[in-house]
Amino acid sequence: SMDGAPTPASPAGLSAYVAVSQLLGLTLLATTGAWLGRYRGGVAWHSPLQFNVHPLCMVLGMVFLQGDALLVYRVFRHEAKRSTKVLHALLHGLALVIALVGIIAVFESHRTKGIPDMYSLHSWCGMAAFVLYLLQWLLGCGFFLLPGASFSLRGWYKPQHVFFGIALFVLSIATCLLGITEMLLFNIRDSYSHFVPEGVLANTLGVMLVAFGLVVGYVLTRDDWKRPPLAEELALSMDFKTLTEGESPGGGS
Amino acid sequence: SMDGAPTPASPAGLSAYVAVSQLLGLTLLATTGAWLGRYRGGVAWHSPLQFNVHPLCMVLGMVFLQGDALLVYRVFRHEAKRSTKVLHALLHGLALVIALVGIIAVFESHRTKGIPDMYSLHSWCGMAAFVLYLLQWLLGCGFFLLPGASFSLRGWYKPQHVFFGIALFVLSIATCLLGITEMLLFNIRDSYSHFVPEGVLANTLGVMLVAFGLVVGYVLTRDDWKRPPLAEELALSMDFKTLTEGESPGGGS
Repeated sequence: SMDGAPTPASPAGLSAYVAVSQLLGLTLLATTGAWLGRYRGGVAWHSPLQFNVHPLCMVLGMVFLQGDALLVYRVFRHEAKRSTKVLHALLHGLALVIALVGIIAVFESHRTKGIPDMYSLHSWCGMAAFVLYLLQWLLGCGFFLLPGASFSLRGWYKPQHVFFGIALFVLSIATCLLGITEMLLFNIRDSYSHFVPEGVLANTLGVMLVAFGLVVGYVLTRDDWKRPPLAEELALSMDFKTLTEGESPGGGS
Repeated sequence: SMDGAPTPASPAGLSAYVAVSQLLGLTLLATTGAWLGRYRGGVAWHSPLQFNVHPLCMVLGMVFLQGDALLVYRVFRHEAKRSTKVLHALLHGLALVIALVGIIAVFESHRTKGIPDMYSLHSWCGMAAFVLYLLQWLLGCGFFLLPGASFSLRGWYKPQHVFFGIALFVLSIATCLLGITEMLLFNIRDSYSHFVPEGVLANTLGVMLVAFGLVVGYVLTRDDWKRPPLAEELALSMDFKTLTEGESPGGGS
């Protein structure tokens, strides 16, 4: 650990799942690159290929980096909490910047080609995911990194932050699946139903996106892999429960 | 409660969220019906309209009923556990039957029109969701309803059942979004980008599906709305923790 004390070992299962998630994440990026490179002419900013910047940036930012930012509290569960928090915020910030580049790419590409913006379900879900992700990041910085918020206010906001964090990650993946379907139906509409290689490759990318979400989601929600609470957090959460749960004691594990 | 003892009140927030989920769920069904009735010629089994049975059955079975089956443990959190379990299994069983009808409808419709099966990402995700949902139901019955499984075996399987249950519900909603996108790109490809009413209605249906998933997911994962564990479950989970968590005490709230 960062203070030089011996670090307790992570559970073996956790390490294995995290390793699988990273392999899957890198394969996602490689597969997206292979699709765009092999079947869609490659990626370039100032050219008719500008659109292709969009899927690459969204898979990198809204899926891979967003997922890894969520995993930080499990991977570094015995490191100093402050450092882990800063890393969590930095990875989400990087994901937001990369996603913004991807969004600019599709709007500029639409403008060049005279295609209207924001008409599809993919664009509605994607814009909602991006705006709420930015909002969630700002709220997270305000509550957890700036010194203003009290301990009990943080304790109240934290479960909301965790729930919406996972929900936005899932919505981002679902939006990628919609994007894959749109691209295939626009580009290979007639041959898609004949199982041409591009269709099978892009479908496989979709399945891997779902698998990445499943593995990350499993790691995040497994109870005994959660970060052990600090002593003062434990005391606070007990106070909080006593105050708010007068009528219904208990409340599950 | 079913044994005549006074039932503790449910938290007001829980009741409000459940009410919103049911309003959303019914609106989902009405909107799906309105789309099919107003723009897609209606629904009928022996006719070119057979395809339209598919979206209606999938939204009813794989989304509304599956979601309500998950909510049963929160809505009836103070009722006898055995009755709640049976209701949970029955609702999932009904959802499976309705989904099967919806799947048969699309395969028969494809056969009639000479369209190949199982080539799209929607079909891959949907078939995976259905087969895994059936498997999850069989495993759930085997572990929790049949008398064979020991208490500790049930305790081991339960968190897996809960995680995969929520994951399959989310995958089902994502698959509906893919289906909406496919239908729009096949039926109104050229006018979709001009914000025609059918496109806006179907996009709105997609947003409501996401909202239904969010509300149900929030109710299911909120810690203090979970079913209070029975005394013997609590004792067991403590034994289990002592046995398996030698190296990492704690484990989050």
